[in-house]
Amino acid sequence: MENFIFQNPTKILFGKGMEEQAGTEVRAYGDKVLLHYGGGSIRRTGLYDRIVASLRRAGVDIVELAGVQPNPRLSLVRQGIQLCRERGIGFILAAGGGSVIDSAKAIAMGVPYAGDVWDFFSGKAELKEALQVGTVLTIPAAGSEASTASVITNEDGWYKRGFNSELIYPRFSILNPELAFTLPKYQMACGASDIMAHIMERYFTNTREVDFTDRLCEATLKTIIQNAPLLAAEPDHYAAWAEVMWAGTVAHNNLLNTGRTGDWGSHDIEHELSAAYDVAHGAGLAVIFPAWMKYVYRHDLARFAQYAVRVWNVDCSFGSPERTALEGIKRLESFYRSLGLPTRLNELQIPEEKLEEMADKCTAGDRQTIGNFVKLRRADVLAIYRLALK
Amino acid sequence: MENFIFQNPTKILFGKGMEEQAGTEVRAYGDKVLLHYGGGSIRRTGLYDRIVASLRRAGVDIVELAGVQPNPRLSLVRQGIQLCRERGIGFILAAGGGSVIDSAKAIAMGVPYAGDVWDFFSGKAELKEALQVGTVLTIPAAGSEASTASVITNEDGWYKRGFNSELIYPRFSILNPELAFTLPKYQMACGASDIMAHIMERYFTNTREVDFTDRLCEATLKTIIQNAPLLAAEPDHYAAWAEVMWAGTVAHNNLLNTGRTGDWGSHDIEHELSAAYDVAHGAGLAVIFPAWMKYVYRHDLARFAQYAVRVWNVDCSFGSPERTALEGIKRLESFYRSLGLPTRLNELQIPEEKLEEMADKCTAGDRQTIGNFVKLRRADVLAIYRLALK
Repeated sequence: MENFIFQNPTKILFGKGMEEQAGTEVRAYGDKVLLHYGGGSIRRTGLYDRIVASLRRAGVDIVELAGVQPNPRLSLVRQGIQLCRERGIGFILAAGGGSVIDSAKAIAMGVPYAGDVWDFFSGKAELKEALQVGTVLTIPAAGSEASTASVITNEDGWYKRGFNSELIYPRFSILNPELAFTLPKYQMACGASDIMAHIMERYFTNTREVDFTDRLCEATLKTIIQNAPLLAAEPDHYAAWAEVMWAGTVAHNNLLNTGRTGDWGSHDIEHELSAAYDVAHGAGLAVIFPAWMKYVYRHDLARFAQYAVRVWNVDCSFGSPERTALEGIKRLESFYRSLGLPTRLNELQIPEEKLEEMADKCTAGDRQTIGNFVKLRRADVLAIYRLALK
Repeated sequence: MENFIFQNPTKILFGKGMEEQAGTEVRAYGDKVLLHYGGGSIRRTGLYDRIVASLRRAGVDIVELAGVQPNPRLSLVRQGIQLCRERGIGFILAAGGGSVIDSAKAIAMGVPYAGDVWDFFSGKAELKEALQVGTVLTIPAAGSEASTASVITNEDGWYKRGFNSELIYPRFSILNPELAFTLPKYQMACGASDIMAHIMERYFTNTREVDFTDRLCEATLKTIIQNAPLLAAEPDHYAAWAEVMWAGTVAHNNLLNTGRTGDWGSHDIEHELSAAYDVAHGAGLAVIFPAWMKYVYRHDLARFAQYAVRVWNVDCSFGSPERTALEGIKRLESFYRSLGLPTRLNELQIPEEKLEEMADKCTAGDRQTIGNFVKLRRADVLAIYRLALK
């Protein structure tokens, strides 16, 4: 185990009706808020009205910025920054999924910074301060509701880049599983895939002697594997959503990587898909993760065998860890397919002739290698895209 | 799953050499500290010198209060309160195990309170404010380093009572597994038992549909079961101590009970042992927990079977959940014995004629029943003591 420092300050308010507390929570930070959200879905479900009513009851003035898209865009972030500056806003309430929350975090980063907010995502500037953010989560997937991460897409070149800082942990997050009832099945599946990817990125590590976090990762994966199929059959299954929602938060709140170095190569490889083709991140991950596994599993057969046995209940072939490992990867693919997710690039209409360009972009600039478990260069990334092709 | 609010603010600084950061961490809260500890052990190991040097480097004035005993006493807490008031101290640094930390928390509670600090433990007063506490942990066991709990023994009648409040979460805790190398094997075993009890108190619940926290509990239990025997064989096994130390913190930091109601009956039943006979808490729990299980397992056979299969790898007797459940309890007892722990009251020299008196005290006052999984009255508690006798 490696030395680590861990402190996650996000206050989780979990369960039915918890959005009624949004006003009180925001009011602890000020009397004016930027309410940031996507499109019509929170209006259709009535969530918008309940949040606004709660904020008004608490005496909070509301400035709104709607229009966040999946793979949230830099241009809207810049608008939000300007709006906060003009209106003297110090707190942002994000109501939606990971895109809305990531967009809110980026706005929070940009407001007190004199330069352009993309500087943080391109690695040109170090974050010193940020506004504070709270969230009302509607889509269990990104884990942004209690994470240090924000991922933004720059339309100028369609670069999708992530940024991490403890300064952007949300101050509170409201998690009401009922808010996920209206999600289409495909989006639920994409969320499950995203959550599993967050865990697997942490699981595949070169750090030795990490029993406890291994087991926590396995427990969290098994929770998703057990509950996502229940949601595929019954979208308003409260108990199953509750498991998935809470597991999705813990998957990405940095507990599962305490004392270990994660990989994160698959995320970088996937970002080229969702940036350029506007593929849902979770769908892209369902395509990339099995291909990544097939490319790297020989690097640590024992770990892949452990994954297969403990996560997927594969019968261990003691004489052939390779057979065990491959069976685990196969079960992961089957699971994705059982949820209706794609597992090949051709299902996403990404043509073979684009793979070189994606591999270029993925390893462009300072990033000569990506990932930690195995450090991947351009040729490796290209090979992984090819493995994922059809 | 039940609705819940979860926020654990304790900053964990984990790993080799982390005690060097004690000064910087304390300095963030003020320039004067009460350094609270037990006896000679932190002086013998050199930890005392390293902490004092770190505090001095950071420009922190030190006032000392040593002498905390296992099952920490109210009289010393009262001394500490007086000392903090006289010297205008606003922050307490506890260096030691759970007893030292619990004593520090009780001092922190008492300083701003006009009445007697025992009022909180006897349920007469509600905590409104407390000084802040930091810790340097030397004994993985109590979990007090990131918990809301303090347990104090009142020598006037030898009452041992616990108190919980989010106001007494430590602000930071320094966890260096090397600091546990000097623990005698018996004390390591008591710590393992204490940690396991914290998990099992949460595990045995009547709350339905708690897959995720069930699995997190099982993961944490398995980590202790895997690593404690390594420490019995090799007391300076860093990796094993790291697993046990971090698992011991997570066992009691309230993550594992999110959305579920725990039992805590065995803790109350044990407290009569450690209060009156100064038995190590972990040893007392090793005696009480199996007896409690034997008394209550029929209340939820499926849960006890799940515990046996998932935690102890018992081969499930599908035709007889009772056989599966009983085998799980047997494995727990065997595990305790393999670590050299007692599993019967007679090994602790507690005579049969004292059982009635202990059952009286355990259910005295407002506490007509104890525990939640099964609500136990005096006759039940007595029956459990009898099951534990020999």
